[in-house]
Amino acid sequence: LNLEILKLGGSVVTNKNQPMSMNTAAINRIASEIATAGGRGLVIVHGGGSYGHPLAKEYEISNGYHSDLQLPGFSKTRQAMIQLNSILVNTLLDAHVPAVSVNHSSFIITNNKKIGEVDFKIVELYIKAGMVPVLYGDAVLDTEIKFTILSGDQLAARLAIDLKAQRLIYGVDVDGVYTANPKLTSNARLIEDLSLSHMKGMVKIGEALSTDVTGGMLGKVQEATSAVEAGVNVLILNALKSDYIYNALRGESVVCTRLRR
Amino acid sequence: LNLEILKLGGSVVTNKNQPMSMNTAAINRIASEIATAGGRGLVIVHGGGSYGHPLAKEYEISNGYHSDLQLPGFSKTRQAMIQLNSILVNTLLDAHVPAVSVNHSSFIITNNKKIGEVDFKIVELYIKAGMVPVLYGDAVLDTEIKFTILSGDQLAARLAIDLKAQRLIYGVDVDGVYTANPKLTSNARLIEDLSLSHMKGMVKIGEALSTDVTGGMLGKVQEATSAVEAGVNVLILNALKSDYIYNALRGESVVCTRLRR
Repeated sequence: LNLEILKLGGSVVTNKNQPMSMNTAAINRIASEIATAGGRGLVIVHGGGSYGHPLAKEYEISNGYHSDLQLPGFSKTRQAMIQLNSILVNTLLDAHVPAVSVNHSSFIITNNKKIGEVDFKIVELYIKAGMVPVLYGDAVLDTEIKFTILSGDQLAARLAIDLKAQRLIYGVDVDGVYTANPKLTSNARLIEDLSLSHMKGMVKIGEALSTDVTGGMLGKVQEATSAVEAGVNVLILNALKSDYIYNALRGESVVCTRLRR
Repeated sequence: LNLEILKLGGSVVTNKNQPMSMNTAAINRIASEIATAGGRGLVIVHGGGSYGHPLAKEYEISNGYHSDLQLPGFSKTRQAMIQLNSILVNTLLDAHVPAVSVNHSSFIITNNKKIGEVDFKIVELYIKAGMVPVLYGDAVLDTEIKFTILSGDQLAARLAIDLKAQRLIYGVDVDGVYTANPKLTSNARLIEDLSLSHMKGMVKIGEALSTDVTGGMLGKVQEATSAVEAGVNVLILNALKSDYIYNALRGESVVCTRLRR
């Protein structure tokens, strides 16, 4: 199975600063890029953006259970994610990508925020049936803190490892991993090749400083580490720029950060 | 775990003769009946009605794969079910029932239309976390015919058996099982108690005649047989009449058909 995992960030598929607002132009373009690239042997994972995040934050789902008042919030976060997923799958179907919604998250139980045992066999079966499964980060049950948020980044990395994907592509709203936050610093430089030891160093410094100098990219690098260790080629690229995803899916050269062993 | 499974028929939650049309009055009333009755230790399953059925029929999903042109239909059927489920869960949340959408169907693989192995442990965990899982019939993968439709009736019966539910309540648009189709025959008589041997006889006659004299109730009786054999008390009642579900959930007497060993 020649398989690729495409993670679409919440900041790509939604307008992050407007609650429950899709980036319609972006998802229409991306759907057509996926369709033109062929769109088989592909699994898509997406984040929450302005759908899942505000509710998850309001009800403090990420850090686990502290009150029964959070229960509707858990469910409302999931409802928002289902709605976002639904719009995305319908957009892909309209572009003739045989997308199918697979709500794997309602089946995943994390152990203190980390995915424990999980069986992705059914995802493989959907691929073999000729479909493109579309999964997402979500509110999930947790063995230690009762519930939490499973990020699309973590889910995508785990899928890539378990399904032995050739490549894992993170589509974000900047060109890749920078030496500093490119949205704040004009002399931030794109890192085109990031080795495993470099990645681990970044994560260590980030943890020590309790800050993410790269502007939100550290979590992605952290989640991707295990995929890189397992031999998956990881690309972090700008999904808001035309044809970047198309070129990446076609195996053509594209400006991005490559994570390698 | 004192557990009840409530199956809400597609003819209850939707307007069957209008495509993609909810029976808003019915679901609002039922949500408030569930909330007033207490609404814990409960699993809700719903059918497809005017959401899932027209698409499943148009793309001939039920009888399995014969063309790649069915693939978008498989996904569209699922999208319609997700939408229906979403409206229902939101209505329950508005009524303060801690409902949570659990898309179990994307995890079930049938063997020639029958559920094979399935693990409902996660449904139990949602119940233990204080939530009311809401599942539904859906388009599913099949080991023999590649895909099919799994009915909410079959899913509800299997849940009742595997989770050792005390009761399985089928909410439909008539008072229960009749001696003839009550919508066509004025002298159709409600059968208040239906024994296992009587049930098996009905199914046998129905199969022999290739017709369902009870007006759509035969499939439900057929699916319920295994649950009754496993010791579950099954009720078939009119969910379109006020307080029938409320009374049933409270364990109070209600006009219905009781299926017993």
